[in-house]
Amino acid sequence: MLSQELRAASQIVALVGLVFSFLMLIPWIASVFTGWSGGESFLWSGLTAGLVCALVMVAGWGDKPRVSKRFGVIVVNMLWWVLPLLCAIPLMNADENFSFVDSLFEATSGLTTTGSTIVTNIVDQSRPVLLWRAIMQWVGGLGILSLGLILLPFLRVGGMQLFRMESSDRSEKPLPRLIEISRSILIIYLVLSVLCSIGYLSAGMAPFDALTHAMTTVSTGGFSTHDESLGFYKGWPIMWVAIVFMVAGALPFNFFIAIFFARNLPRYDPQIIVFFTILISACSLVLLVDGWTQVSNFNQFSQYIFNVVSILTTTGYASGNFMSYGGIGATLFFFLIFIGGCAGSTSGGIKIYRFIVLGQLIRTSLQELLYSRGVFLMRYGKQIVEKDVFRSAMVMICCFFVFLAIFTIILGALGADFITALSGSATALANVGPGIGDIIGPTGNFSSLSNAEKYVLVFAMIIGRLELLVALALFVPLLWRD
Amino acid sequence: MLSQELRAASQIVALVGLVFSFLMLIPWIASVFTGWSGGESFLWSGLTAGLVCALVMVAGWGDKPRVSKRFGVIVVNMLWWVLPLLCAIPLMNADENFSFVDSLFEATSGLTTTGSTIVTNIVDQSRPVLLWRAIMQWVGGLGILSLGLILLPFLRVGGMQLFRMESSDRSEKPLPRLIEISRSILIIYLVLSVLCSIGYLSAGMAPFDALTHAMTTVSTGGFSTHDESLGFYKGWPIMWVAIVFMVAGALPFNFFIAIFFARNLPRYDPQIIVFFTILISACSLVLLVDGWTQVSNFNQFSQYIFNVVSILTTTGYASGNFMSYGGIGATLFFFLIFIGGCAGSTSGGIKIYRFIVLGQLIRTSLQELLYSRGVFLMRYGKQIVEKDVFRSAMVMICCFFVFLAIFTIILGALGADFITALSGSATALANVGPGIGDIIGPTGNFSSLSNAEKYVLVFAMIIGRLELLVALALFVPLLWRD
Repeated sequence: MLSQELRAASQIVALVGLVFSFLMLIPWIASVFTGWSGGESFLWSGLTAGLVCALVMVAGWGDKPRVSKRFGVIVVNMLWWVLPLLCAIPLMNADENFSFVDSLFEATSGLTTTGSTIVTNIVDQSRPVLLWRAIMQWVGGLGILSLGLILLPFLRVGGMQLFRMESSDRSEKPLPRLIEISRSILIIYLVLSVLCSIGYLSAGMAPFDALTHAMTTVSTGGFSTHDESLGFYKGWPIMWVAIVFMVAGALPFNFFIAIFFARNLPRYDPQIIVFFTILISACSLVLLVDGWTQVSNFNQFSQYIFNVVSILTTTGYASGNFMSYGGIGATLFFFLIFIGGCAGSTSGGIKIYRFIVLGQLIRTSLQELLYSRGVFLMRYGKQIVEKDVFRSAMVMICCFFVFLAIFTIILGALGADFITALSGSATALANVGPGIGDIIGPTGNFSSLSNAEKYVLVFAMIIGRLELLVALALFVPLLWRD
Repeated sequence: MLSQELRAASQIVALVGLVFSFLMLIPWIASVFTGWSGGESFLWSGLTAGLVCALVMVAGWGDKPRVSKRFGVIVVNMLWWVLPLLCAIPLMNADENFSFVDSLFEATSGLTTTGSTIVTNIVDQSRPVLLWRAIMQWVGGLGILSLGLILLPFLRVGGMQLFRMESSDRSEKPLPRLIEISRSILIIYLVLSVLCSIGYLSAGMAPFDALTHAMTTVSTGGFSTHDESLGFYKGWPIMWVAIVFMVAGALPFNFFIAIFFARNLPRYDPQIIVFFTILISACSLVLLVDGWTQVSNFNQFSQYIFNVVSILTTTGYASGNFMSYGGIGATLFFFLIFIGGCAGSTSGGIKIYRFIVLGQLIRTSLQELLYSRGVFLMRYGKQIVEKDVFRSAMVMICCFFVFLAIFTIILGALGADFITALSGSATALANVGPGIGDIIGPTGNFSSLSNAEKYVLVFAMIIGRLELLVALALFVPLLWRD
């Protein structure tokens, strides 16, 4: 029953919302203990949000529906469309300069770990606000991991069924297995965050900055507590800590789980090799074309690597301005936006495994072009994979460009210039952060966009996070039939 | 045997080259009768080219190999990579200002019916040169029709097998059938060209202009004899003649063949409906967003329609500057570049039927997302189509964006700015003509690009014309094995 499923889904959303209400209390508690100003608004926000969520839970009390794909689609959509609204509440309350659309943009950018910001004077913001931005990204990253490792494989979206971890023991005990996987994800994520904090601390960051940056690094989010982003810190040690943990955040967590928790899972994932191949190629290219005339010390060398890693992992920190890397700066970084990290990580974009799938398909197509008689198997790593997996991965890539066209044209119609419209849509759909050009490029931000443009980008960020197809499913009439 | 196939392929290329050598004599003959200056160089060019081709024919005399897919791939590649060199000869001979790379660029742009030009003062060019540019596009268009209607369906490239016209009687008499199809194509193309010339003449064009523009209109080429392109003619009648015949050139010729020659072929092709839907939507959008404040007479109204049709059909004429249509100008027209006309026409781009296929696949993916049990058939029009057709169409779309990325990054590395690199690659791969921005936009041209950039675009134009995959097949090691 549709109504039953909708009610049950709203219950789940309210439950998650309740958790977020408690999270809102963290900046307040921190301000009580440290004496930071601006903490009380988070108490009121948390209480308000908690009350609303509790009311929804009471109102929707009833029988639970059976777990179905439709129910999964409804829950995921509701979560990602509603939670940004909830997370915007404390921002609106904290600073009278934050309008509703600005708060919503910032909250969406946080939860989806995009990292685009409308805050112009970040240093002037109160510490509770800065902490809340980091919390949103850290929790958002956790949400994306569950989405990518548990829900999307279950929904068989965009080829993600390749990464079903429970497939080997599908029949027996699915729930305990799921809880075990979730626990492993949480532990790995926590350990990475702690290690990253320690790394930043020992590289010379202040404790508050080390904590907040660690939270936005492992989540490949990219919110910073400085207007110059990580460019605020001039030395290479901090850059390399960031590089290491951005890369860790963009690697498939299945790999970590296989190594540390579940020795029966396959460890070999071709994504990792291809990811590093792309990373090293991009770094070499930009260093060869522009860097060799500019680099005179290790700091400058590190900056090139840092910026490539930041965009490829869809983190979106900046250090200096990659737009100044000559013609290769804008063009290479524009296409890096699309690639993204590995599936099963916190990163966004099209994702590496879909490019592996594409490569396989191009090879097969060319072989069939020359020799129609041959039957060519398609593989992912060592597995032989059904053609349907490949097809849904292709559909997702094509959809990405269709959505890019739609959002770019809408932004253009609203008056944005070509580069801002195109790269803004790309960076939002891929959940990267900065765009290309002077306005929303690595040295700019999104504050000067019109309200309408900000709403469009909010849509783009959420749709990108839902791997497009989950959001598109809302438009299938079948979904709304009993 | 590979060597046998290579020799036989070079024979075919030389034979076609011989035809082109005779075509080079046309501007000379015309100049003899009319007294135009600058005609003799075409005599010498034709004789030189003819001699070379005749030598190659004699040198390669030998047994004919069996017709195979590999042989088809070799012949098509050789034709499209060699003929631009041949067609560049008369340009180099005609004007000492034309360097080798400029002539090659112009010849490639002509034969692929792209329409990008490096000529800055078109009015100062001699009439034989202007005629030769038109001839290249007209013959190029004919080549593209044979490629799209006969060769690609045979090679089963990029989903083009959907358009096999000989499939119903595959076993009996393939060659007479092929000759019959070729004859129908030629007749339709000739009739369209004559009608278009008459249209331009009656709309007030001078006879020479009417002829040359007709040749570049029905071939959706876009070379003009004026620096302002069709913007030189201010009145709406000429614009509407162009609109009608650009659209005719972008419609599937199978449709014309089915109507006029082969009544047993299916006439219904969903491409036509989708093409007009896209066309009308794009016109409405640009008129609604920008036009409603700018349009005060029928001329200005026509100009909007004209520019949309010119880009969508991949012709590339300009009238005025669509970059001045506010933000919607650059963004909408940028994505129009990719779409292209119908398969089986002279136009380029991704082509309409691949978007139909994409739409079907998205629908199926969404249905499977919600209900895994269902088996969903994929259709093209009324036919139920195998999944392989769909897959190869998807691969071509994805390849398009991969090539776009590669060429854009190369142009960026060579120093081009972002908009020029991106839109230059797009317009070359889609064989449209103008790009976006001030340099290569509708009011600019390609003369100011560096030689290296011009070579890159020559590659892009040819690869785009070969529907990417035919060119990529050269890199399959299997091709080169005996």
